[in-house]
Amino acid sequence: MDNKYVIGLDYGTLSGRGVLVRCKDGKVLASAVKPYEHGEMTESLPCGSKLPVSWCLEYPRDYTDVMEYVVKEIMKESHIEKEDVIGIGIDFTSCTMLPVDEKNEPLCEKVEFKKVRNAYVKVWKHHAAQKQADRINEYLIQKDLMQDYRFGGKISSELMVPKVMEILEEDPEIYRRADKIVEAGDWLTMLLTGEEKRSCSMAGYKMWWNNETGYPDKNFFSEITPHLKNFVGEKLKGEVCCIGEKIGTLTDGWADRLGLNSGIAVSPTVIDSHAGMPGSAIARKGQMMMVLGTSSVLLALSDNPFSGKGIMGNVKSGIVPDYYALESGLAAVGDLFGWFIDNMLPAKYVREADEKKVNVYNLLNEKAEKLRPGESGLLALDWWNGNKTPYVDGNLSGSIIGMTLKTKPEEIYRALIEATAFGTRMIKELFEENGVEIHEIIASGGICEKNPFVMQIYADVLGIDIKIAESDQTAALGSAVYAALAAGKAAGGYDSYEKAVMNMSSVKEQEYHAIKSNQEQYNILYQTYCDYNKRMGMDGDRQNVLKRLHTIKENNCHEKRE
Amino acid sequence: MDNKYVIGLDYGTLSGRGVLVRCKDGKVLASAVKPYEHGEMTESLPCGSKLPVSWCLEYPRDYTDVMEYVVKEIMKESHIEKEDVIGIGIDFTSCTMLPVDEKNEPLCEKVEFKKVRNAYVKVWKHHAAQKQADRINEYLIQKDLMQDYRFGGKISSELMVPKVMEILEEDPEIYRRADKIVEAGDWLTMLLTGEEKRSCSMAGYKMWWNNETGYPDKNFFSEITPHLKNFVGEKLKGEVCCIGEKIGTLTDGWADRLGLNSGIAVSPTVIDSHAGMPGSAIARKGQMMMVLGTSSVLLALSDNPFSGKGIMGNVKSGIVPDYYALESGLAAVGDLFGWFIDNMLPAKYVREADEKKVNVYNLLNEKAEKLRPGESGLLALDWWNGNKTPYVDGNLSGSIIGMTLKTKPEEIYRALIEATAFGTRMIKELFEENGVEIHEIIASGGICEKNPFVMQIYADVLGIDIKIAESDQTAALGSAVYAALAAGKAAGGYDSYEKAVMNMSSVKEQEYHAIKSNQEQYNILYQTYCDYNKRMGMDGDRQNVLKRLHTIKENNCHEKRE
Repeated sequence: MDNKYVIGLDYGTLSGRGVLVRCKDGKVLASAVKPYEHGEMTESLPCGSKLPVSWCLEYPRDYTDVMEYVVKEIMKESHIEKEDVIGIGIDFTSCTMLPVDEKNEPLCEKVEFKKVRNAYVKVWKHHAAQKQADRINEYLIQKDLMQDYRFGGKISSELMVPKVMEILEEDPEIYRRADKIVEAGDWLTMLLTGEEKRSCSMAGYKMWWNNETGYPDKNFFSEITPHLKNFVGEKLKGEVCCIGEKIGTLTDGWADRLGLNSGIAVSPTVIDSHAGMPGSAIARKGQMMMVLGTSSVLLALSDNPFSGKGIMGNVKSGIVPDYYALESGLAAVGDLFGWFIDNMLPAKYVREADEKKVNVYNLLNEKAEKLRPGESGLLALDWWNGNKTPYVDGNLSGSIIGMTLKTKPEEIYRALIEATAFGTRMIKELFEENGVEIHEIIASGGICEKNPFVMQIYADVLGIDIKIAESDQTAALGSAVYAALAAGKAAGGYDSYEKAVMNMSSVKEQEYHAIKSNQEQYNILYQTYCDYNKRMGMDGDRQNVLKRLHTIKENNCHEKRE
Repeated sequence: MDNKYVIGLDYGTLSGRGVLVRCKDGKVLASAVKPYEHGEMTESLPCGSKLPVSWCLEYPRDYTDVMEYVVKEIMKESHIEKEDVIGIGIDFTSCTMLPVDEKNEPLCEKVEFKKVRNAYVKVWKHHAAQKQADRINEYLIQKDLMQDYRFGGKISSELMVPKVMEILEEDPEIYRRADKIVEAGDWLTMLLTGEEKRSCSMAGYKMWWNNETGYPDKNFFSEITPHLKNFVGEKLKGEVCCIGEKIGTLTDGWADRLGLNSGIAVSPTVIDSHAGMPGSAIARKGQMMMVLGTSSVLLALSDNPFSGKGIMGNVKSGIVPDYYALESGLAAVGDLFGWFIDNMLPAKYVREADEKKVNVYNLLNEKAEKLRPGESGLLALDWWNGNKTPYVDGNLSGSIIGMTLKTKPEEIYRALIEATAFGTRMIKELFEENGVEIHEIIASGGICEKNPFVMQIYADVLGIDIKIAESDQTAALGSAVYAALAAGKAAGGYDSYEKAVMNMSSVKEQEYHAIKSNQEQYNILYQTYCDYNKRMGMDGDRQNVLKRLHTIKENNCHEKRE
């Protein structure tokens, strides 16, 4: 194992990254990134044809181009022999999906479909299929299926089926001509191995699959839309493969293209944020992963499935072998702080930061650090990008309350940080109410590195120790861990997930501990937060103030456009 | 009357102003201002002795110095003969009070009391007597007196009695030595005329006097504090004089000091903002005065008394002869917009304003004007300085809700303006529910002159025509109107309030009319505002989120100090 290596490929929204990692100790020998050449297409297709609002497409060849580029780069940079690379693991955003033909060629590359928007990759954040999602939710309510673990209480337009329904309804020819409709992450492993298999990660979290009963039955699909009756089987093909297993081995053709040996292991693709779990050294119950970036992802392990209130945890071995992993998160964290800086930071603070030669976050941290919890009298709800848990409602919006004429910008800034910490605590408590033990948090993401002030508030609000993942590329490292597992011990990798994680992944020495007096104050403030949260989040649509404001806004924007 | 003149003296918080006005047509021939030499004393006494928090004192000689200066200035500037000046009228902040001896000498001027803070003038916004006010409120609840018109539902620490109780409890010697405890405005007319009379304006609004039964009885006072039993009679002396009447005539001594003829009429002092009513050409029912400054004042005339929910209207002829005038207002208007500019306006907007060479308000107006009502999805409560009507609660605080990652500064700015307009509409509707007719609004104050965008939103939200007072010094002009009334027609003034106002005071040609489509949108948004307002304002102390935040804040500030 001493000189065996694996490749982790991490596909984000705008670029892909590759790392070359030593199996023995997880040391990253080389790393390379390449943006997708076409980027996100939200305005028009490459041919110039305009797209409606809420569309977000990509071009599938960008993904294979990235793969060829980054693999060659990391091989070159690391100077290792290709004989010593024993496996490839991939993580990908999800549900990012595309229709392909029998040879796995994307339909959008065919001349006759170049102008057809439904032939392209629909990115996870393509939100145009909301009306299809609404219809599915109506059906779920009508059939009393909302409590079914598969559906997580309420389904989102980001999932596979609303996106497929949109193809069927707008461009039925594309649906007809598609041999398969696949997750982009599964498409890549199909190309690499020639095997028609899918990962249970994306099948479970995005396509309602579970280990016991598979996908929903024909009856379910035909009741949603008669033409979808045979969707599973006709368009959604291939065995579902659990995490820790192997999709197949690298074909001669792709070995050539990547400059690797054929026959090496390829692991099932994992949802990008989920791959952060092994990358954050998480191997057992009691640990919660917290990725703090523009938004946040929270994941914790359980022996039992649970879905509902914006939490998904319906598939066993979807991330960590033999466990259910419950997933939730906040829809805006770094994005919210960035909004504050862009839209609310007064000129005098920018001047002061310039004079002190510090960045504005550091200036705000310095000022906000002097405040005690609750001292400002402010409270915020972090719903600037809607609420995921517990209301699953994109139409909810943010609040700041408690201002007086003496309120200062750093007090608002701190209240926004606290709001995201309270929102996180609410999710953690929902996890715990559903049988998940949480003894420590392993955090990763840009905010952990850059903003210790935020981390201390999280520790104080959550009342729990927070460790920081050693890697700053936890998803890519996690994919490498899966690759080592797929390769297996005999080849120089691992047979045990826990052993692989323990050897390849670690946390930093620095930890954040809750400060007792702050924790006590935050316990009091959190009660008030919960009451205000419920007041603003619950209620029927007619009574809910935020949802009424959303409706008024929609009506006005609509009238303005006309 | 053609060549007869009156003097109006307007005493604000930090300075006093005098105007010399022609009786015939209200033409202002001259105007002069002088700041109080000692200003507000909030930190220490002139001797250096420190003051506790919430104290706000002034030095009474500053008021007489101002009077001598401004009267001489306007006489000089206007070149009129002193024989042609027929009267003096005064308005003053209230309750701004002081203890004086039998010769009307302020106790703070005596050597032995120079270091005693309770000997000085307590300014209207001296808020240190809150615990005394709390005790009175407890008593009122216990005796079921909250519905009594005198008390307006809940009494404030700004009134006369809490301030007197503070003297009695902290420095009983001052209480004992005081021959009288007087409003500063009454003190000035006592000096000028030698008559021991008080104005019903301040007696009614600040000392619970009414036309039918006078002050509360001995029993009431002794139950609040036994030592207060004989307060009325012993310390609070003198006949109460209605508006439109005359306190007396100028003494020889003061005629000398001011360079005027002795024997000219002096009218009863009116509360400063109330004097804006005649100064805004308001003479009859159906008109509402709206002063938009740092805070706002709303006044409207009624045949019946009403007090409660932060509205005071218990005294007949307190402002306009024969009417009850209902008073309310918002605790922060211009102050709220100023807070936004100081604390939330991002650097890029300041830069843009600099580049365009406009002030930041104009830049924001230009941007916010392009929005439709409701388009931003935002809603705010204007309680940055507490809520006066309907909750009478200084511990309530501001809210902004409905933010998304796309929310822009001009949307928040507009929501704050709308919040003050909605708060005003709520007061107007409360006036109307209590029998007041309102057909038009006469506005005055800095915002009317400077910010037409704000005025248009008020017209749209209130759905009513808004006129602007011609004078930019409505209180000083109003005091001159009262002087002309006190002088009477025979001397060249007026016997009829309505005639005096019609001749001396007017509105501008420019009016603001509601734009129908905006008005309709605001009607919808206002319903949501009312619901959110009630949700955040009502509830018992234990449930109210804003009041819980206030308590948490208080506890933390307290602990921090210790």
